[in-house]
Amino acid sequence: MSHPMFDRHQSLLTQAVEAIASRGYWSPYAESPRAYGETAIEDGRQAFEAYRNAQFYLDQPGVQGKAGSEVSPYGLPLNVSYPQCAPDALIDAAKTAMPAWIKAGPDTRAGVCIEILARLNARSFEMAHAVMHTTGQPLMMAFQAAGPHAQDRGLEALAYAYREMKHVPETAIWEKPQGKNPPLKMEKKFTIMPRGVALNIACSTFPTWNGYPGMFASLVTGNPVIFKAHPTVILPLAITVAVARQVIKEAGFDHNLVSLLIDDPKVPVAKDVAMKADIRLIDYTGGPDFGNWLEENCRHAVVYTEKAGVNCIVVDSTDDYKAMLRNLAFTFSLYSGQMCTTPQTVFVSREGVKTPDGVVTSEQFGHDLANSISKFLEDPARAVEVLGAIQSAATAARIEAAQDLGEVLRPSSAIQHPQWPDARVRSPLLLKVPVSNERAFMEERFGPISLVVETATTSESLATAERVIREQGAITFSLYSTNPVVVQLGEEAALRAGVALSINLTGGVFVNQSAGFSDFHATGANPAANACLTDSAFVANRFFVVQSRRHV
Amino acid sequence: MSHPMFDRHQSLLTQAVEAIASRGYWSPYAESPRAYGETAIEDGRQAFEAYRNAQFYLDQPGVQGKAGSEVSPYGLPLNVSYPQCAPDALIDAAKTAMPAWIKAGPDTRAGVCIEILARLNARSFEMAHAVMHTTGQPLMMAFQAAGPHAQDRGLEALAYAYREMKHVPETAIWEKPQGKNPPLKMEKKFTIMPRGVALNIACSTFPTWNGYPGMFASLVTGNPVIFKAHPTVILPLAITVAVARQVIKEAGFDHNLVSLLIDDPKVPVAKDVAMKADIRLIDYTGGPDFGNWLEENCRHAVVYTEKAGVNCIVVDSTDDYKAMLRNLAFTFSLYSGQMCTTPQTVFVSREGVKTPDGVVTSEQFGHDLANSISKFLEDPARAVEVLGAIQSAATAARIEAAQDLGEVLRPSSAIQHPQWPDARVRSPLLLKVPVSNERAFMEERFGPISLVVETATTSESLATAERVIREQGAITFSLYSTNPVVVQLGEEAALRAGVALSINLTGGVFVNQSAGFSDFHATGANPAANACLTDSAFVANRFFVVQSRRHV
Repeated sequence: MSHPMFDRHQSLLTQAVEAIASRGYWSPYAESPRAYGETAIEDGRQAFEAYRNAQFYLDQPGVQGKAGSEVSPYGLPLNVSYPQCAPDALIDAAKTAMPAWIKAGPDTRAGVCIEILARLNARSFEMAHAVMHTTGQPLMMAFQAAGPHAQDRGLEALAYAYREMKHVPETAIWEKPQGKNPPLKMEKKFTIMPRGVALNIACSTFPTWNGYPGMFASLVTGNPVIFKAHPTVILPLAITVAVARQVIKEAGFDHNLVSLLIDDPKVPVAKDVAMKADIRLIDYTGGPDFGNWLEENCRHAVVYTEKAGVNCIVVDSTDDYKAMLRNLAFTFSLYSGQMCTTPQTVFVSREGVKTPDGVVTSEQFGHDLANSISKFLEDPARAVEVLGAIQSAATAARIEAAQDLGEVLRPSSAIQHPQWPDARVRSPLLLKVPVSNERAFMEERFGPISLVVETATTSESLATAERVIREQGAITFSLYSTNPVVVQLGEEAALRAGVALSINLTGGVFVNQSAGFSDFHATGANPAANACLTDSAFVANRFFVVQSRRHV
Repeated sequence: MSHPMFDRHQSLLTQAVEAIASRGYWSPYAESPRAYGETAIEDGRQAFEAYRNAQFYLDQPGVQGKAGSEVSPYGLPLNVSYPQCAPDALIDAAKTAMPAWIKAGPDTRAGVCIEILARLNARSFEMAHAVMHTTGQPLMMAFQAAGPHAQDRGLEALAYAYREMKHVPETAIWEKPQGKNPPLKMEKKFTIMPRGVALNIACSTFPTWNGYPGMFASLVTGNPVIFKAHPTVILPLAITVAVARQVIKEAGFDHNLVSLLIDDPKVPVAKDVAMKADIRLIDYTGGPDFGNWLEENCRHAVVYTEKAGVNCIVVDSTDDYKAMLRNLAFTFSLYSGQMCTTPQTVFVSREGVKTPDGVVTSEQFGHDLANSISKFLEDPARAVEVLGAIQSAATAARIEAAQDLGEVLRPSSAIQHPQWPDARVRSPLLLKVPVSNERAFMEERFGPISLVVETATTSESLATAERVIREQGAITFSLYSTNPVVVQLGEEAALRAGVALSINLTGGVFVNQSAGFSDFHATGANPAANACLTDSAFVANRFFVVQSRRHV
């Protein structure tokens, strides 16, 4: 008899598996706020407020104390405290929970996981406020990115893992002819066995969007998941863990299959936990230093990292100069450049930008781009709904420090948030440097910091972008050109550098947006990430196939 | 227009993809010598002889000299010399060959690869003699294992890789509704990009059976392959490489996609080459020391290792004692225990072996097993057709050194080969030790060395076997029991230890045999191997998906 949660979600699962085969547009979780009811935003706010100035309830083992000192980038102290648990207690409890979860098999596990996603979906606006007041994202973005879009990505990774598991037949009859003698006949059983406890180290900007793929890929293949939250962004994962534990319990399994690990910024625990032999899978999103350290040191685990890098744009020519500038202004403004997909470097040649109205000089292009951003942000009330707030003081400081890197095309300035007077809001900084100033543009500068890099020719722009991407890594690469030869050269460079390319975005799609079930996010082929977030390679190593055979 | 080699083999490819989904009996390459024609054995012998006392022709770049000093374990010096090429020259040539191979796409690459397999199949008896006189396998085994069975495994890995690549659509139309406005519509292209140059480090006992899965998984996903042959077993891979290069050339591609790297036993090059940054994939079969070294040090590459371990048998009870002994006698004799699947340790409890005729004491069981082996080998002419020869002098020395490990149930002795007077033939050594003597049985002793380990109970047998497998690794685990509870406990132990289990083999299937397209060989879940030789995880990391998107 199949599990009721599998029955409930089987049809969605089937659709998800179909969607990953065609990769057209498909999004099972509504991204329109209206779909969540008229009072959803306010209900979510109240649910968020209920967490404030209180202890977050999580009945996890090994509680050693309480911690949590989140302060909203919008200036609001959260005053939420969370149980701080001993890592070994969480690991032991996770291991204890495994056998029944393994035995349940792929269908039941998929059903339970999709039920978790359904419950998370219902709480998308509660999550939106939690994400807004930890990551600094504007509310509507926090709703979409941390709600339905993150749920899409979770289901997508789950679908990949489910397809791979279902490719392995549960049993087989092997019947080998023996000439005149009766055939040799054996029955074989093939069992999916998980690799072991998964540690999911989340980032401070997109804890759910980047965390859910690994979480659901691991869970559905039978592995327990310990979420290690960033000390400044705990609440979104605490809600996630609480929902998951509740559903797992209701489904008849041990809720310690999912748990939350927190630490103090002054006493980080991630390295120690990652080095424990019982941690067999690590999913990581964050800065390259710690990501590289995990890859280098955690030989006992399979490590999936998304570390970002230096995303590039090459501007050669366009058939709609104004639309291109509008598109770029939004791209650079969205969440103040705090996306792993935000471009940092715009290459433009001294030969200028060819447009239907003639050639725009590279100098003029720089000023036009700066003006477009300024114009786009001229109404502060509208601006803050795109910019959001700066997640960390370190990023704000990075903007200050970057001012001297080159000619300032557009200075960054503090913006007064109409609703949150203490919000840390900064407008994008746009600089200009010559291609010779590699020190300025060959390094990731996380935040609203972009550089226009002037080259001699578009060929040099493409060659330099390719080198930057190969050496520093990139998740996105954007090209503007009306010349088919340049587009082809750009496509070839993107293939060699292993980076996703967007060509001539002048409308309602932005290079920093990555659509679940359609866009592959990261490739694993350049230093920005050692894996794509949702493909076969991301899931296939999370389980083993163990067989037994006997004569029948 | 599709490539003619794809057209020729498309139907076989379709069957192979179906076979991996059902994993029943399927073998596309005939294992009966008769299928190869009446003169096949003699033709193969002559082809083999033609290589002797000559230079092997391979037009590879960077030739620095010649090397090769293979001596048959049957006593025959081969006197074949091979071009010794500079690793960097092979790597550079491989990289140069890549772009056209990438562009050809999965279908064409699959067609060319299957044509290589077809040509290898036609030369199975040439390969048989080459393998016999390098690995020491008896001729018929060399034919099957290095011919059709190796080809099966190559096609099987190819089918897994092909299925994964075909899961990625080449293009997609993404059309997102925008309410009353026209939808956003983009065309997306998804391209399979290979990881990079693959190094395939082959072993001295099954160079083709263990080497072909990695070879064809890499090639079909677009990666060039450099075969590093064991210095004492070069000819089988030289033939493989020559055939592959010929087919690749005929197909219109650069034959440097496949090349042969050899070294001198005194100046090994594998470590240096493996550490080169351009090597992005490593397939390795061989001893655990070097395998572990590769895993630890080659961070720039994805490393697949098969290192073997301590395969175990637990004997509890049987409904056919004599058939069990016959099965075990063959298992221990086949190729003198030089298979990564040969059991080394037989656990039997002091409570004895329950049989339909009463309980056989553990002491009696040891003697009966020894006698069965001796009886099975009593005719030397028949014995050598199963035992083959000992591949290396080191293995022969290991037998000598093992004599003192415990009570000798059956001494190993030299056997005079009726046809090859200088052949290095040894009969299996069978020892008995108590379970307390862990030093004796907790370590791999490659070759015809087996130990009966006496425990207190079958429970202790199972528990100890599980521990051995978890700590030392194992590719096979065999259990004899008529008690369903014991069988269930054995199955659970096998799942936990991540090892393939065979239950009650008393007929024509032996635990050391692993059938292509049905048995998963190794799991990746215990120290014997970090990957299964043919599953999704073995192929998914050999390529990346790189996308480009634009409005339409």
